[in-house]
Amino acid sequence: MNRLARMTLCFAVVLFLAMPALAQDQKVRWKLAMTWTSTLEPLALAGPWLAEMVSEMTDGNFEIRFEGAEKHKAALEILDMVKGGQFEMGHSASYYWKGKDVTTTFFTTAPFDLNAAEQYGWYYYGGGLELMQKVYSKFDVYSFPGGNTGVQMGGWFRKEIKSLDDLQGLKMRIPGLAGEVFAKLGVNVTNIAPGELYTALDRGTIDALEWVGPGMDIKMGFHKITPYYYAGWQEPASELQFLVNKAAFDKLPPAYQTVLTTAMQAIAFKMTAANFEANARAWEQMKAELPDIKVMTFPEPVLKAMKAATDEVMAGYAAENPEFKEVYESRKAYLAVARPWTKVSEQYYIETSDVVAE
Amino acid sequence: MNRLARMTLCFAVVLFLAMPALAQDQKVRWKLAMTWTSTLEPLALAGPWLAEMVSEMTDGNFEIRFEGAEKHKAALEILDMVKGGQFEMGHSASYYWKGKDVTTTFFTTAPFDLNAAEQYGWYYYGGGLELMQKVYSKFDVYSFPGGNTGVQMGGWFRKEIKSLDDLQGLKMRIPGLAGEVFAKLGVNVTNIAPGELYTALDRGTIDALEWVGPGMDIKMGFHKITPYYYAGWQEPASELQFLVNKAAFDKLPPAYQTVLTTAMQAIAFKMTAANFEANARAWEQMKAELPDIKVMTFPEPVLKAMKAATDEVMAGYAAENPEFKEVYESRKAYLAVARPWTKVSEQYYIETSDVVAE
Repeated sequence: MNRLARMTLCFAVVLFLAMPALAQDQKVRWKLAMTWTSTLEPLALAGPWLAEMVSEMTDGNFEIRFEGAEKHKAALEILDMVKGGQFEMGHSASYYWKGKDVTTTFFTTAPFDLNAAEQYGWYYYGGGLELMQKVYSKFDVYSFPGGNTGVQMGGWFRKEIKSLDDLQGLKMRIPGLAGEVFAKLGVNVTNIAPGELYTALDRGTIDALEWVGPGMDIKMGFHKITPYYYAGWQEPASELQFLVNKAAFDKLPPAYQTVLTTAMQAIAFKMTAANFEANARAWEQMKAELPDIKVMTFPEPVLKAMKAATDEVMAGYAAENPEFKEVYESRKAYLAVARPWTKVSEQYYIETSDVVAE
Repeated sequence: MNRLARMTLCFAVVLFLAMPALAQDQKVRWKLAMTWTSTLEPLALAGPWLAEMVSEMTDGNFEIRFEGAEKHKAALEILDMVKGGQFEMGHSASYYWKGKDVTTTFFTTAPFDLNAAEQYGWYYYGGGLELMQKVYSKFDVYSFPGGNTGVQMGGWFRKEIKSLDDLQGLKMRIPGLAGEVFAKLGVNVTNIAPGELYTALDRGTIDALEWVGPGMDIKMGFHKITPYYYAGWQEPASELQFLVNKAAFDKLPPAYQTVLTTAMQAIAFKMTAANFEANARAWEQMKAELPDIKVMTFPEPVLKAMKAATDEVMAGYAAENPEFKEVYESRKAYLAVARPWTKVSEQYYIETSDVVAE
């Protein structure tokens, strides 16, 4: 072999080795942990939807495997697992980290706060996304909207709530900020594991409880013991959450970063529609098959007391936590702009549907 | 050069030529035409948002150039231009094709019909997307949701509408199905080019007009002549539209098809938030700076007559057009499932905001 032939062969071999390497460089394998078990639809669709979209957009070069809580057994430790890097991503809800940082609750929802359309306005145009990254930067993760559940129901009660007196000494399972609000109104607030809720109601350990909404509540059988089902005030727009390990995201090729953020946005949109569908179907079924459930709204003095107690709880946190105060004030300012438009557009429109109904 | 050297050199050359060819294969250059002029935000953001997302996700290999109406001069001919292939894509609104096919109006909105959350439920889970592709297949294009404007306002009136008598002989600019409804109620319905609306009002050629919503209406100055501004009934959830030339889409590599559909979903979501923001800000500004505008709701007998006339108009089209009937019935069925949930969740929640407001 002469010198030219050797050089050429060498060059060809280098090219050959380089080609698969170029493709190999782009290969990414990630894992995503969900708070939900794999069968909890529609929430648990976040995993398969994301995996499929991202894989298709990258010709299979960016693969995301997802695990439900039945496998990783750490439903409420998603933030730690994504921070630690055992999973590059999670799908959960921001208010599960209230114990670590109370400000995270705002990125899900808060009592008497923004509805879903208003909250998306705040996220995209009212500084919400920036505040979310700021709050989460201390955990070395990025956080993104992951779809909205819509307004959650106010809970199941054994007896009608006619006045504030009916709340005194009532034993109720209601977590989070709403639990703090009810505690201020004299409710004996407790927390009980989901698997024991029905038994606790049945034995009188609790008199009332707040769970989610018709789609998930009916299966639990609460209506057999607590026939009064109240409309919601405490979670007007529960937003789900994608969490992404910061170092892992920053290492991605720029194209894959946009593939991921675009897919998450598309999924937030689809998930919101999926939750609407699930709630609407469950409500229809409930009204048809369980006509004895008494759908109620809280009386005006009770709502006003809840609102005053909410303001007190929020002011308490704001006084001691500047970051909480910053997010709280940002949301209040957006609500003041958004709500008048919501009322003249959406609220008036739904009212006309009652007027014109035969 | 010996035989081996020649073969090796030849092989190296082939490899060299093949490499850029592999990348070149994936290069796609498309054009998108918008109904909107480039400065009409937020609607005109659809073009730059899509171009940026798609380019980033494909490392610049799939480029979409966008044109506003000021350039292509054919704002209301987007469907024809996408069908004909002059543009591979468009961003517009489906009801602009009412003259070609009245069924297309449903994919924007219809009087007394689904609100935005309900309509997304219908699109994704009530068969809406499938019906849309069926209706558009006759034009050889695919159609996708492109973002929602929310509830549009009911229009500007010189005098208060106290009863149906006040509609008799009223000269009003109101296009589409709502115009047909008002014609049935004795309104003298006309169409006037946007640029001449103010003058027509000023000279008394018309007494009233329907335009869009606060963000776009105030700039037109209508309030100076017609101080009564009515809440909406005729466009509860105007959805924008992406149109894609079918042959062009089908030729795309599968990865690029998913890149495009995912980006369109993400943009529909962002656009809906952008419209909410624009309307809310404009409403706030209007209330502060133009307190003499009288914001009104139509009286109950007028709303009931509008609803009866809407049902008549729809029944008329349904009787002669089986495809119209199919989509109309699909939407009515979804509304029957969706609205009770909307009322117990969103409507009740917004009502509580009035109750608890100080």
